[in-house]
Amino acid sequence: MNLILLNPNDFIAEDRVRLRGRRFNHISTIHRAEPDSQLRVGLLNGKTGNGLITQIEPDFIELTVMLTQPPPEKLPVTLLLALPRPKMLKRVMQSVTSLGVKQIYLINSYRVEKSFWSSPLLQSDNLHEQLLLGLEQARDTILPEVHLRQRFKPFVEDELPELCEGTKALVAHPASEKNALLEPNQPTTLAIGPEGGFIPYEVDKLAACGFTPFSFGERILRVETAVPAILSRLLPI
Amino acid sequence: MNLILLNPNDFIAEDRVRLRGRRFNHISTIHRAEPDSQLRVGLLNGKTGNGLITQIEPDFIELTVMLTQPPPEKLPVTLLLALPRPKMLKRVMQSVTSLGVKQIYLINSYRVEKSFWSSPLLQSDNLHEQLLLGLEQARDTILPEVHLRQRFKPFVEDELPELCEGTKALVAHPASEKNALLEPNQPTTLAIGPEGGFIPYEVDKLAACGFTPFSFGERILRVETAVPAILSRLLPI
Repeated sequence: MNLILLNPNDFIAEDRVRLRGRRFNHISTIHRAEPDSQLRVGLLNGKTGNGLITQIEPDFIELTVMLTQPPPEKLPVTLLLALPRPKMLKRVMQSVTSLGVKQIYLINSYRVEKSFWSSPLLQSDNLHEQLLLGLEQARDTILPEVHLRQRFKPFVEDELPELCEGTKALVAHPASEKNALLEPNQPTTLAIGPEGGFIPYEVDKLAACGFTPFSFGERILRVETAVPAILSRLLPI
Repeated sequence: MNLILLNPNDFIAEDRVRLRGRRFNHISTIHRAEPDSQLRVGLLNGKTGNGLITQIEPDFIELTVMLTQPPPEKLPVTLLLALPRPKMLKRVMQSVTSLGVKQIYLINSYRVEKSFWSSPLLQSDNLHEQLLLGLEQARDTILPEVHLRQRFKPFVEDELPELCEGTKALVAHPASEKNALLEPNQPTTLAIGPEGGFIPYEVDKLAACGFTPFSFGERILRVETAVPAILSRLLPI
């Protein structure tokens, strides 16, 4: 937790918050914070700044906050990700969020196991928790939007053309002969397949929608490695 | 398992192997392989090629193998990584191996919890297993070398100067004002700190040894995200 995320209903005065539960526990046990110590805070979907601890009680903590700075720049990337297995989904959602992606489409693919779609992790509360962890990690406040698209064909035919309009549309495809075409900070729609990759039919459907297949080298990477490695090439660093 | 790794003692003839245990189970249950089907194989620390299944028995499988191709190029990077917490260590070792790093130093740092050094995961058999998983994932055969250095100061003073000679030496340090200086395929010694980063004393010691601190943007990333994101900038793609 490199930033304490605040909600509007944490405020007990214009510049004052009272925190209980997970954030209270974290601040008191991990940060081992004491009165007058400073913490980095941010308002969900708002500005970031500093919090000064004014009061510590057995079950809550109070801070005076100054929110003056904008959150980090977002990454201008719409990510289409074949739904990973639940265990990996958690980490990937945190990782993607920490890297600044704000539009995430979890999509179906032939090689996505049907059972993955019934994982409790996909319930919006559970997804929300992973997104918060990613924001807190990266000191960001802007919540990504996660969209679930359980049918590949109607998504690609009916929704995707408009979605990727005006962006560079790329699909990671190890069998492709073209190497990466990733350019930092260019608005990009990026499709990453499941373990084993998209099947040729799916790559063809994406290509028909304007996506260029690219290879990211001859090494086949796990989704949790491939995602940060590919997104890294789009970071404005 | 995108490649079946073979050991010299799997061979029952010059071009023939018999596999039991984990690899046998994987081939029969995940690949659901049948006689005459082809699999990608590689000899540990040797060449890669194809394996033709000639026989399937209840507890072993036999393949005729042709090993003609070199493994993927290694990444010319020596990675110094502050020992991550055990749960993360597994994944990071697999990820780093799949990206082609062949020299890994797990080092101490002020913010590494002492207990991490007594994790059973650091026993060489357990580390070996993670490395094999990384190689199988990336279709590589060349086993990385993992070195454990539990004392920071003697390592940096006595061993590191020779280790990083003739390479570009970089230490990831979020507080640095310089942005990333990563160039693909250049021999690099790369130091990545623990969650919370190296302390100033450690950064100073590394700087005295010729390391340039660099920032990878204002977002703070978890080690398992930072490692593939930073290594990605060194990949020759």
